[in-house]
Amino acid sequence: MRNGVDREIPEQIGTRDVRPYEGAYATVRTDRKVARHQKWSSPQDDKVLPSIEAAIEACGLSDGMTISFHHCFRNGDRVVNQVLDACARKGLKGLRIYATALFPVHEPVIEHVKSGVVARIEGSMNGPVGAFVSQGGQLAEPAVLRSHGGRWRAVEAGDVEIDVAFIAAPQADPLGDATGIRGKTPCGPIQFSAVDAQYARKTVVVTNDLQPYPVHPFEIQAAWTDYVVEVDEIGDPENIVSGTLQLTRSPTNLRIARLTAEAVVASGVFVDGFGFQGGAGGISLAVTKYLGDEMEKAGIAAGFAIGGGTKLLIDLLHRGLVRTVLEGQAFDLDAIASLREDDGHVAIDPGFYANYDSRSCATYQLDAAFLGATEVDLDFNVNVNTHSDGQLLHGIGGHQDVAAGAGMTMITVPSIRGRLPMILDRVTTVTTPGEVIDVVVTERGIAVNPRREDLKDRFEAAGLPVRTLAEIREEVGRLVRPARKPVFGEEIIAAIEWRDGTIIDVVRKVEGWA
Amino acid sequence: MRNGVDREIPEQIGTRDVRPYEGAYATVRTDRKVARHQKWSSPQDDKVLPSIEAAIEACGLSDGMTISFHHCFRNGDRVVNQVLDACARKGLKGLRIYATALFPVHEPVIEHVKSGVVARIEGSMNGPVGAFVSQGGQLAEPAVLRSHGGRWRAVEAGDVEIDVAFIAAPQADPLGDATGIRGKTPCGPIQFSAVDAQYARKTVVVTNDLQPYPVHPFEIQAAWTDYVVEVDEIGDPENIVSGTLQLTRSPTNLRIARLTAEAVVASGVFVDGFGFQGGAGGISLAVTKYLGDEMEKAGIAAGFAIGGGTKLLIDLLHRGLVRTVLEGQAFDLDAIASLREDDGHVAIDPGFYANYDSRSCATYQLDAAFLGATEVDLDFNVNVNTHSDGQLLHGIGGHQDVAAGAGMTMITVPSIRGRLPMILDRVTTVTTPGEVIDVVVTERGIAVNPRREDLKDRFEAAGLPVRTLAEIREEVGRLVRPARKPVFGEEIIAAIEWRDGTIIDVVRKVEGWA
Repeated sequence: MRNGVDREIPEQIGTRDVRPYEGAYATVRTDRKVARHQKWSSPQDDKVLPSIEAAIEACGLSDGMTISFHHCFRNGDRVVNQVLDACARKGLKGLRIYATALFPVHEPVIEHVKSGVVARIEGSMNGPVGAFVSQGGQLAEPAVLRSHGGRWRAVEAGDVEIDVAFIAAPQADPLGDATGIRGKTPCGPIQFSAVDAQYARKTVVVTNDLQPYPVHPFEIQAAWTDYVVEVDEIGDPENIVSGTLQLTRSPTNLRIARLTAEAVVASGVFVDGFGFQGGAGGISLAVTKYLGDEMEKAGIAAGFAIGGGTKLLIDLLHRGLVRTVLEGQAFDLDAIASLREDDGHVAIDPGFYANYDSRSCATYQLDAAFLGATEVDLDFNVNVNTHSDGQLLHGIGGHQDVAAGAGMTMITVPSIRGRLPMILDRVTTVTTPGEVIDVVVTERGIAVNPRREDLKDRFEAAGLPVRTLAEIREEVGRLVRPARKPVFGEEIIAAIEWRDGTIIDVVRKVEGWA
Repeated sequence: MRNGVDREIPEQIGTRDVRPYEGAYATVRTDRKVARHQKWSSPQDDKVLPSIEAAIEACGLSDGMTISFHHCFRNGDRVVNQVLDACARKGLKGLRIYATALFPVHEPVIEHVKSGVVARIEGSMNGPVGAFVSQGGQLAEPAVLRSHGGRWRAVEAGDVEIDVAFIAAPQADPLGDATGIRGKTPCGPIQFSAVDAQYARKTVVVTNDLQPYPVHPFEIQAAWTDYVVEVDEIGDPENIVSGTLQLTRSPTNLRIARLTAEAVVASGVFVDGFGFQGGAGGISLAVTKYLGDEMEKAGIAAGFAIGGGTKLLIDLLHRGLVRTVLEGQAFDLDAIASLREDDGHVAIDPGFYANYDSRSCATYQLDAAFLGATEVDLDFNVNVNTHSDGQLLHGIGGHQDVAAGAGMTMITVPSIRGRLPMILDRVTTVTTPGEVIDVVVTERGIAVNPRREDLKDRFEAAGLPVRTLAEIREEVGRLVRPARKPVFGEEIIAAIEWRDGTIIDVVRKVEGWA
């Protein structure tokens, strides 16, 4: 069948009956979420276990079950590999990994797939695991990718029932209250796992800093935690700052950032109290910086900004240019320190941030957001998951959630990357539908979705270089040769969920080249 | 049938099948909680309604439904009466009120019962409403009293399904994020309603201080809130400090407090890092003060204290004698200010505090707790609900939760009140079973539960006046005449739930006097 972004989607993917994407807000549910498990303890219960193996046993983890993780240490995480190694030693087979995201550090997952310990992966795959999955034939079921909000929603809805949640906790007490903003190796808030901890059949807190009761803030609560394991290492906080988390130095990208900031200023939303999403990519960081300068010049302040907490955003908070920072994850140590100290800096969980099945999301309050893309097409559809070669190399993150929510969603993308055109007739994979994209900013000009004539008029009045996507694509077409197109086979290696649980696209195995 | 504290309990109370109390930790559930309702919104949704009537309409509130409230303004609350008046104007009948607690200010509830607007009440009734219910024949079903933790548990378990939660919010934003620690009339954290907001079919935030998004901390979340109503008045913060929240000046009570503090010091739990519950009654405040002095003298600090946040407890925090204060409700404005300012002062909800159906409670971590009583009997059973005349005049509060959790639970009670003996053969109503009471402190001496010979030895070694309850009862019996005993009829006017949802006792209508 063809879905609402005109993609061919099968009625069944693996064992799953597919609900096709129909529109950004087409799903309205009036039923109930899945019911949480009853739990119990006596006041004398001792939850501290000597090892991850002991926790695996205590939880009754067995073949085919689902285990979950957060990614708050990103490429510095040490827990996923430790747990999978322990599962392998226990002889477990056929597990489903429900991680928020995997990174290059999780390359050992590949061996666990090959040996049968892991049979399924749902969650973002950044780098080698994604490339491996892209080869096809590896997993018992296609991978499933969800946005931050979509993952939270899927747990609450019962789409994914977690058997055991393993939660890396930079500080925890013996009852399992846990936080990511204190401890020997703080990684920022670990509330990504809050829904896992509440809905999983069993919850295990894995910490390298066990402290007396009560450890707070209670990102994870003792009420939800079945067992606590102390280990030597859970992650390397230096590695939560990945290489991409630096202000761009590329002149092209700086031009895009400058145009984006100018477009925000011209858009009509740039008034005291407005809200924006400050991303952590190189261009987004530069836009945030420029926007701060513009606010200072104009004598206004943002009512709030949602991060990706970064030093840059915290500086705006300290300068009074942003009144409140809502932070789902920390991208550097300055952001973590600020969470401990600044009243105006508040940790939020993905449910608060972006749960489609709720009465409000933080992203719905955004006036402006600037997001990246691997590709954009003439219908304003955006791809952030695959490269033009068809390889699945990135997760969705909050892309869908922010794009769907913000009053003005801007995609910042260079028109050419690695001699490949980024504005295409059709994106390789639709992550985010054009209907929720308002503006695409390239170094060659600003394209405005025809649904937003109002913005086009404002940008033109401000003297900004407004052009159509077709014009930009054509201009680029004269400069670079068209990319070799992958030829896709039938096998689906991953399903891309829209944030409401429908399928917006699938990723198929690459069979060759056109 | 007779239950685990030897009380005669019917198999059916109103329409409810009774599970009898069997023991403090007898219930172990492995099923699931009730499922929460799915909710939805578009980014453009406007939740702000012009009046409580408009919210009643928008929520589809109709005859026989259940509405809920918190009591964080205590006797200063203005929301319960406003909502019930609006329900009356709308012609609604047969409502069930599921308030955490009603106070003398809620006396107008009586008229709403008489006129049929209200048919059922579940929750604490302090004062006139309780006295009215005690007369019998007023409600369609007997009242149900639950502890703080028990009320939270009942919602999660689906024992009580709330149709519309009305939540008084000292500050809220137009999306329904709400807090009690900021605003024009702060009342302290309003997380008592967090479970209502998450599980109710519809949630309405009622505020007198609507501020721009995002209002935080998010005690109530926009994700849970269906509608927001701004009204002139929600409560009088001066009245959250009731007359009882003063250090006792009675020499008898001061002696009890002094003995209690000395017993804590002698008990073996008085070591650096211990945890205690600091109540807000006159004797408890005095014990807290004495205990602070003792800690200072001994050069130790408590790891944590659970309040009832009071100036006294905050002073201990500021003096470094308590490292962390966990606060479920604020009892004065100093406590509220401290919640905004002190990192070591953390708001907790009743689920965190005391939910039986969970993997840990804060109360389970307590080393010592000192609680009040209206009566104590020779089996160490405690009554906090009824007076010796059989009138239902008080709620349970956290009494059961703390008593069941604390390593050493001490009941502080004068042996005589108003010329009536307080140590009896049998309490009028069992609120908290003797099996979880360790020590009873009266001005005539300290009685130790025979299950705790270890404490008796320690107290005697410290030269404390250890006596049996029988001795104290007998001594008092020589000083005062026995109380006139009420003669109870058959009609049950209230059921007292143990914190696991079983029935520990019932309150019957008083028919006359012996």
